[in-house]
Amino acid sequence: MSGTSSGKIVSLYGHTEKDKAASAIDRMQELVAGRMAEVNDTILKRMDSPVSLIPELAGHLISSGGKRLRPMLTLASADLIGYTGNKHIGLATAVEFIHTATLLHDDVVDESTLRRGKKPANLIWGNQPTVLVGDFLFSRAFELMVESDSLKVLKILAGAAAVITEGEVLQLTTANDLSTTEDKYLEVITAKTAILFAAACEVAGVVAGQGEEVESALHAYGKYLGIAFQLVDDALDYNAERATLGKEIGDDFREGKITLPVILAYRRGTDEERLFWKRTMARLKQEDGDLDTAIELLEQASTLDDTIKRAHHYGAMAKDALAIFKGNPAKQAMLDIVDFCISRAY
Amino acid sequence: MSGTSSGKIVSLYGHTEKDKAASAIDRMQELVAGRMAEVNDTILKRMDSPVSLIPELAGHLISSGGKRLRPMLTLASADLIGYTGNKHIGLATAVEFIHTATLLHDDVVDESTLRRGKKPANLIWGNQPTVLVGDFLFSRAFELMVESDSLKVLKILAGAAAVITEGEVLQLTTANDLSTTEDKYLEVITAKTAILFAAACEVAGVVAGQGEEVESALHAYGKYLGIAFQLVDDALDYNAERATLGKEIGDDFREGKITLPVILAYRRGTDEERLFWKRTMARLKQEDGDLDTAIELLEQASTLDDTIKRAHHYGAMAKDALAIFKGNPAKQAMLDIVDFCISRAY
Repeated sequence: MSGTSSGKIVSLYGHTEKDKAASAIDRMQELVAGRMAEVNDTILKRMDSPVSLIPELAGHLISSGGKRLRPMLTLASADLIGYTGNKHIGLATAVEFIHTATLLHDDVVDESTLRRGKKPANLIWGNQPTVLVGDFLFSRAFELMVESDSLKVLKILAGAAAVITEGEVLQLTTANDLSTTEDKYLEVITAKTAILFAAACEVAGVVAGQGEEVESALHAYGKYLGIAFQLVDDALDYNAERATLGKEIGDDFREGKITLPVILAYRRGTDEERLFWKRTMARLKQEDGDLDTAIELLEQASTLDDTIKRAHHYGAMAKDALAIFKGNPAKQAMLDIVDFCISRAY
Repeated sequence: MSGTSSGKIVSLYGHTEKDKAASAIDRMQELVAGRMAEVNDTILKRMDSPVSLIPELAGHLISSGGKRLRPMLTLASADLIGYTGNKHIGLATAVEFIHTATLLHDDVVDESTLRRGKKPANLIWGNQPTVLVGDFLFSRAFELMVESDSLKVLKILAGAAAVITEGEVLQLTTANDLSTTEDKYLEVITAKTAILFAAACEVAGVVAGQGEEVESALHAYGKYLGIAFQLVDDALDYNAERATLGKEIGDDFREGKITLPVILAYRRGTDEERLFWKRTMARLKQEDGDLDTAIELLEQASTLDDTIKRAHHYGAMAKDALAIFKGNPAKQAMLDIVDFCISRAY
């Protein structure tokens, strides 16, 4: 075994595949560029307030270079099914607001130190405004949803919001708990991440009035893509190569967040290794060098690789969910974005 | 001048009037008891979750003896206009959930130490679950609203939620700022408190399909009642008699929250008094005995009395808003509850 853990992840694809996947996001961005400009306008307009602290704080996160993957999925889904109306613009904005509100509340929650490469809002403005501006974005998201005039859309997105918070609380209750099963972990990431991906895609089908089959297919695509996305996210948090790129790694380790790489390593580990995981992640007694040791154990047990393999499985299901749709550039972009989400190194 | 500040507040009515007003809440509770039992059932059912931390944490606040004033207003408004349907039950529940979510997020926000006589949730469970369970209740509120199948109801309540959070942020920006005007203060309390009272009443008119005039009247009643309620709340925070009853006072003072009693006292004060307010509330350099001094200054400047007088003004407007309705027991209870909100000593 040579080099870093990321070497192992990359080795699953080779650099060419990785580059091809990386360009998928550019192609999807190009595809939806026109409508995304409208989404961006709506974001700016709807996060505005005479209370200047609100756009200031919200803009800190919203402008800080997220990929806008979720609203992009709404726009691409609309293109996929040939929807030419305007209702999905507000919904794409609502989806991004829900996501951003969740991130803001996570900042309070996790006391994390890096968020999209910037200092988290709560360290600049304090917990109070961070919670409240998150609430503000949630409320604005609901206003945008109401404007869609579709009770079905409202049911989907209000339901998603409830499931997301339930998933976040469930995640808290599994923190530091090394007996967490893979099944429970899947339940957490489906709720906290995948359901919003699913809703982002599904609502495009609803406003286009295309019926249950299309809506279910879009929902399934989004859900499986979201699960794959989160699996990769959780592997990347132990990716030493990212650290060399100046990215923060080890957040989950420091918080004792029990993700699949650790779940698998704990189960596969020796008694001695289990003592290491118990000390560092259950009791949070961590010393210098523990993160390096953790990464080493994950690599030895191949659990970063296996987490990525699981992501491939869900990625394949996401692609198959699109089988009912005729080929068009949006479909190709949505297929390619699955590979992007799995092979991304950031 | 003799006795405590609360002596001054009570002196505005005398004990008989205060007792009469206190029984108003009992009468309203009796009036809506049947439907309130349904609301309580809905509350328990909808705050439930397989993630047991959620009902545990939410129940801490929801079961801890709040008066359920807001859902009571929805039920009484429905009675006032003779609505016999069921849609307001879910909406009354949604209103209570929004209120509770706000309180939970306030717990994180204000680091307050007493909430409905119990330890705040964040001191028991930490900030993380408190924020998330607040989000969960917000989401469940929206689910309940969506179930009303009324886009108008959704517009009102989603708009209210956005205004509430905007008001809370505005309040943060006026904290420690002694130049805050009475006008700005009214803007804050209208947004953070009165709009939810207004929405709680208005939605009953909407589901009953009674038209704009009825909806506006209910909205106005709720709004003015809410303003009066908050004015009294802000006066009570400096009410020394409450301290003798074991209630916490001085929260606003300790946080540097600029409320009307202080706004008026600062304007009316001598240079020396202003230095006191600047030290204690702008710079938050507080010493033992400062709260007593603050209460003394507020009494000397009659600003607690004047805050209550302002509340009477808005209370009168609330009552007048009901003039278009025929007399019935619900109307009488809604009129009496105005007096209750103004003369309550807790």
